Amino acid sequence: MRKKSVSTRKSDVLWKILESKDVFVVEPRFRVSVQKVKLPDGRTVNDYYQIHFPESVIIVARTLDNKIVMSRQYLHGFGKVSVVLPGGTVENGNTPFETAKRELLEETGYSAKKWFLLSSTVPHVNHICGKVHIFFADNAKKVVTPSSNDLEEMEIILMSENETINAIKKKEIISLGTITALTLAKIFLS
Amino acid sequence: MRKKSVSTRKSDVLWKILESKDVFVVEPRFRVSVQKVKLPDGRTVNDYYQIHFPESVIIVARTLDNKIVMSRQYLHGFGKVSVVLPGGTVENGNTPFETAKRELLEETGYSAKKWFLLSSTVPHVNHICGKVHIFFADNAKKVVTPSSNDLEEMEIILMSENETINAIKKKEIISLGTITALTLAKIFLS
Repeated sequence: MRKKSVSTRKSDVLWKILESKDVFVVEPRFRVSVQKVKLPDGRTVNDYYQIHFPESVIIVARTLDNKIVMSRQYLHGFGKVSVVLPGGTVENGNTPFETAKRELLEETGYSAKKWFLLSSTVPHVNHICGKVHIFFADNAKKVVTPSSNDLEEMEIILMSENETINAIKKKEIISLGTITALTLAKIFLS
Repeated sequence: MRKKSVSTRKSDVLWKILESKDVFVVEPRFRVSVQKVKLPDGRTVNDYYQIHFPESVIIVARTLDNKIVMSRQYLHGFGKVSVVLPGGTVENGNTPFETAKRELLEETGYSAKKWFLLSSTVPHVNHICGKVHIFFADNAKKVVTPSSNDLEEMEIILMSENETINAIKKKEIISLGTITALTLAKIFLS
């Protein structure tokens, strides 16, 4: 029986987790863990911190007349008002897709029939774990009045694709997640 | 004297921070704070958590023959090998621009003369503070051997713009920051 091929690229050798313990926990919102890890070169790192968030979703919803459904709101992490795409946290027992449909409906009142996943990205390559699933929803229509339980007051606005790209260029849209989702949608759909 | 105009948009009213204290600190890497905040509708939230990271930079460096300088490496936050752009943390006393030049040189051995800032983004709209500055560096040339002190083993690879976009489409590039920087560069430069 032949051995499985083993890559000899140094960059392919994974780190070995020797120990891991939670050191600060705010369930279900996030937890901080610290790991003892062994690097491929033999070194040991005793305090590699990671912050674990639940998975989340971002939705690029496009209406029948080619507008993107956006939310103008105060962002407490930023301390200012900006424009973001709808999105939210995947709760226990739900799939990312179910979450995306629910968040779009609750936050914006829109529903869509054509959905696909643009990408499942990682928010930070080293220290923040969790996944951000980016969905595209086409032929979106307003079907109900928004009924979000979010803390933020939101104003739903419709923007053309060009308006979103100009708002990114003018730095009016500053959320990493919203920029990624809008630019991914542009690239995948063009 | 005329009064300054006051917006009546509900989404424009900022939250008021009544109290803020650090509850978990790993200096200089990050700290967790909890705030008591008053919302515009009068409600008070007693436990709004925020995670504060230092500012960081990501660099899209393009060589004279139109290749993007990338790094193939293990990402411990992801648990797998992927391809990312060079980047790093802004240390005390340095500007984001100085950091970007240093990280590009140390991680990849490349230097560039033409630089501009594509965007300064926020990593998370609510709970993660800090800024991610995305730079574009043109006419990059290899001038030294990389000498990064990072924990990761890196393999520097050059990719055409089309190869980066295809790698995003094929989900081989999964870092939110790297995707944002590559797609922003594509949009700004086209």
